[in-house]
Order: sequence, then C-alpha cells, then structure tokens
Amino acid sequence: MSAVKTHAGRRSTKTDFDLTGFLNQCAKDVNAALEKFLPRATIKPSTIHKAMRYSIFAGGKRIRPALCIAAAEACGGTRNAAIPFACAVECIHAYSLIHDDLPAMDNDDFRRGKPTNHKVFGEGIAILAGDALLTQAFEIAAQAAPVKRYPMQTVFKEITHASGSKRLIAGQVADLEAEGRTITEKELKYIHENKTSALLTCSVRLGGMAANCNNTQLTALTEFGQRVGLAFQVIDDILDVTQSSEQLGKTAGKDTASQKATYPSIIGLEKSRQKAQRLTNEAFKQLEVFNNRAHALHGLAKYLLLREK
Amino acid sequence: MSAVKTHAGRRSTKTDFDLTGFLNQCAKDVNAALEKFLPRATIKPSTIHKAMRYSIFAGGKRIRPALCIAAAEACGGTRNAAIPFACAVECIHAYSLIHDDLPAMDNDDFRRGKPTNHKVFGEGIAILAGDALLTQAFEIAAQAAPVKRYPMQTVFKEITHASGSKRLIAGQVADLEAEGRTITEKELKYIHENKTSALLTCSVRLGGMAANCNNTQLTALTEFGQRVGLAFQVIDDILDVTQSSEQLGKTAGKDTASQKATYPSIIGLEKSRQKAQRLTNEAFKQLEVFNNRAHALHGLAKYLLLREK
Repeated sequence: MSAVKTHAGRRSTKTDFDLTGFLNQCAKDVNAALEKFLPRATIKPSTIHKAMRYSIFAGGKRIRPALCIAAAEACGGTRNAAIPFACAVECIHAYSLIHDDLPAMDNDDFRRGKPTNHKVFGEGIAILAGDALLTQAFEIAAQAAPVKRYPMQTVFKEITHASGSKRLIAGQVADLEAEGRTITEKELKYIHENKTSALLTCSVRLGGMAANCNNTQLTALTEFGQRVGLAFQVIDDILDVTQSSEQLGKTAGKDTASQKATYPSIIGLEKSRQKAQRLTNEAFKQLEVFNNRAHALHGLAKYLLLREK
Repeated sequence: MSAVKTHAGRRSTKTDFDLTGFLNQCAKDVNAALEKFLPRATIKPSTIHKAMRYSIFAGGKRIRPALCIAAAEACGGTRNAAIPFACAVECIHAYSLIHDDLPAMDNDDFRRGKPTNHKVFGEGIAILAGDALLTQAFEIAAQAAPVKRYPMQTVFKEITHASGSKRLIAGQVADLEAEGRTITEKELKYIHENKTSALLTCSVRLGGMAANCNNTQLTALTEFGQRVGLAFQVIDDILDVTQSSEQLGKTAGKDTASQKATYPSIIGLEKSRQKAQRLTNEAFKQLEVFNNRAHALHGLAKYLLLREK
C-alpha cells in the first residue's frame, strides 16, 4: 500500500486520493437522502419529527455512511446502491447517541457543540426520538435494491445483530455497569468492540453487501472494520484527555472526571497511540484484496487515526 | 354472524367457539417461540437479557399475537406461518410499555401487578431493554417464511409504519403533549388510533400477510383492526374509572388523577360503553368475507369488549 510508480512514470500514492472531497461528497449525498427518507418537520406530530431531524442533522461527520459507501465502491458497487444502508446506519448511530446522552445514561449536555436532544426537547421526547430513528433505520434499509447474494433477510440479520442486545446495546450496558469501578483492559476492549466497533464493522459489511461482494471481500471488510472500529475508540479516549471541550464540541476530560476507564488511563497515553497505529496498520493490510479500489477505505482509516476531534 | 342451524339440526353459534382454549394455546405457542427467539438470560451482558425477559414474560395476555394468528387462520393460513410476526408485534408492544412507563413519560410503578422495568433494573437499563426489544422485533420478523404477495420489503414497511413516528410513537407524543390540558374528542381519537389501534391493526394485517391473503381480505382485516383497536382503548379508559388497582394490576384512576383526557371524561361513561359496542359491531361486520373461518377473530373482538381488566 506504499507509493508506486505507474507505467507513465508519475508517482501515484494513496495520499493522492482526495479524502476531503470524498467525505464532503458522501456527506452531501447522505444528507440529501436522509432529507428525503425522514418525515418533514411539518408532519404531525411535528415535535417528534423536529427532534429526529435536530439530532440527525446536528453536523455529524457521516463517518459510518462514508465507510459504507467506500466499502461498496471497493467491491465495485455503486454509491446509489449503498445509500439506503449508509442512511440506516447513520439513523442507528444518531438514536444511540440520543439515548446515551440521557440523564439515566451518560448525562451529557452537549454533543457536537450543541445542546443534546433532551436538553432541547425534554427527556420524554428524546427517548421517543431515539425510538423513532431506530424504527426509521429499518424502514430505510428495507428500501435498498435486492442483491443476489444477500437477500433482505440476511441484511436485516446483519443490522439487528450489530445494533442489538449482544453488540451495540451490550456495549452500552457494559459501559453503564463499569462506571465508578476499576476495569481491566479486557473489559474496556469488550465495551469498545461492542459500543463502537460493531456498528462501524456493520457499516462496511453492508456496503460490501450492497455491492454483492464475494466471501473474500466480506471477510476482509469485516477484519478491516473491527480494527478501524477499535482504533477509532482508542483515539476517542486519547482526544478526551488531550483536547479541550471547545475543540471536541463536547465536554472534554469527562472520562477522567467520571472515573471512566479509558485506554490512556489503563495502558497510558503513549501505548494507546501505538495501539491505534498498530490497529490501523493491520486494517490497511486487509485492503490488499481490493487491488486498487480501496483508496477511500485507506484514506478513511488514516483520517480516523490522525483526526483531532 | 348470528346463530345458525346446521343441517344436523344442532344449534351452532359463534359462542360455541372455545376462545379461552384458543387464547391459552396462542399464549403457549407464542411464549415457546419467544423463549427461543430471545437471547437466554445467561448470555452476556446478562442484565439486558434479564430485563428484556422480565417485561416480555410479565404475564401479558398476548392479545396482539392472538389477533395475528386468528387473522392468519381466517385467511386459510397456518399458525406457524404467523408466529414470527406474532412474536415481533409482542416485542414492539413490550418495548413501548417499558418506555411509556418511564419517569420521563407516564411514570408508572406497576404494570400487570408487577413493578415496572425501570423500578427493577433502573432507568438506564430499562431504556436499553426497550431499545433491544424493538431491535429484536425486526430480527424475529426477518425470520418469517417469504410469501408470494408480500415480500420482506412490504412486511417491513408495514411494521415500521405502524410502530414509527407517524403512528405508535405519534400517539405517545400526542399523549405526552395532552397531559394537564383539556383536549377534544377528536384529539383523544388521534391518540388512541395511533397509540393503540395502529399496532393492533398491524397485528391482524401481518397475520393476513403471513397467510398470503388477497386484497379483499386485507381490507377487511384493516377495517376490523381499526375498530377493535379503538374499542379496546375506549374500554381501557372505562376500566380505569370503574375498576380497582387490584383488579387491573396497575394503578387505577390514574387518568383522572393526572387529569388525563379519556372517553368517559369527555363523552361520559354510558356513551363510552355505547361507542365501544358500536365499534365492535362494525368490526363483526367486516368478518363476513371470511365465511366460516373467523370464529377466533369474532371471539377476540367480543372478549376485548367484555373484558374486566
């Protein structure tokens, strides 16, 4: 995956890939699709639709949709085929953030520099807005065009497994139960693998499925997603320690303040950085099966490693 | 739908149908299926699986599953074909009750004579248990055998619509927003149609779909479900006024205490009774298209009208 010389003699490197352009275009396409998929704010009862839209259009970077689209393109699929899945995972992500921010959970007042859903709409509506976005995710996913290798049943099994009680929700439960007590690195890995990595991995797998990928590709995407997902969360832990609230758009140092276990608190800052780098390198290796089509996936993994918020 | 003489001269009436036996068998079959569909309580993290099972096995009467199965049988389908949908709607029902009972919503301490989910497991886990049951519903529904007229996409559209922000959740939002102020009968009808009738109607429609029903049958099931659903909620309102907490297994007189608008408070007790009777009669009429196969649907509508808790 290092720089190579093309036969024309021009140096072509992975870094030539315009990741910013790719991310911006993904965000634009996904936002346009979400705008159509979600009920308008004027539809009765408007409170719920305003609350759903408040969180879904709160300025998220659309990382999961971008991973989904990049995976589809790596497998030779089209962006359009991946869009319903990209939007579905973003709805699941948004629902999980609304519920995680509730006073009964992480009790966060800010998210992406804005008041959290329950601070604006109240706890009752925030709970319902999360419920509605989760339901909406399945409505959107069901609108994907059928592909040969992955019938709708398989796709739904994929989404419900990643977001269900043994993965995404399991991570949140373990996180809740870990608060205020000392946990091991193994326990922390369990939380991160489920709370973050499961849905990230699901995003790339769904992209592959939308492109009717083969087994080798699906395995590579899975291994890639798991490593990028874990690295993503290690970096999140590091940023919580090293960045200001202003830089993050959410309360910094919160993990330390709430005595929440993080990678830096368990293995130290330097080892955490090394871990994220090693996981990302392992993720890069998985991209070899896609020959020259995984520029976007490569760029995304690198971007997630080097991000500053 | 009145009593008829068979050619053997024996009087055969709808009341000959053994509804208690039917309800018991439905509950038994649905409980056995839910037992298999839901993760075991020992699966990690056990808290969430215990919480999910606590509410799903809290002694619900399985009305929605029974309606789903009765509808399938009225259309000539098998019970087995309807079971996944029957279990899915029950999971959605259970999730909606857990979230409705939360302090941020109706703030109920008891449900079916037992402490509500958040009273046992805490608010955080209760929110997640609701989320997990909603997700589980879609996992279960995806396991139904495909039928010709209703591909998986159609079925998912049906479920997500009935339980989404324009129906089930819309009803809960309107209910939340109606608290403490005077509302009209029209507004109350909106709440009930969405909060209760939508999922009841969805249950019978899914039963029909599992049986690969035709258009005439689906329309009749829809009209039947809407009327039974509204009658169901009118009766619920009446019981809240006329029964004790002990009889109901939940706090009686709560609607009056919280100044919640109900049918008896808006149109009076006697007119409410007449309304429920009229709706049920209209529902009976819809069953004519099923010839002699709608005994269970007929019995269920009558049972829901005459129930005392």
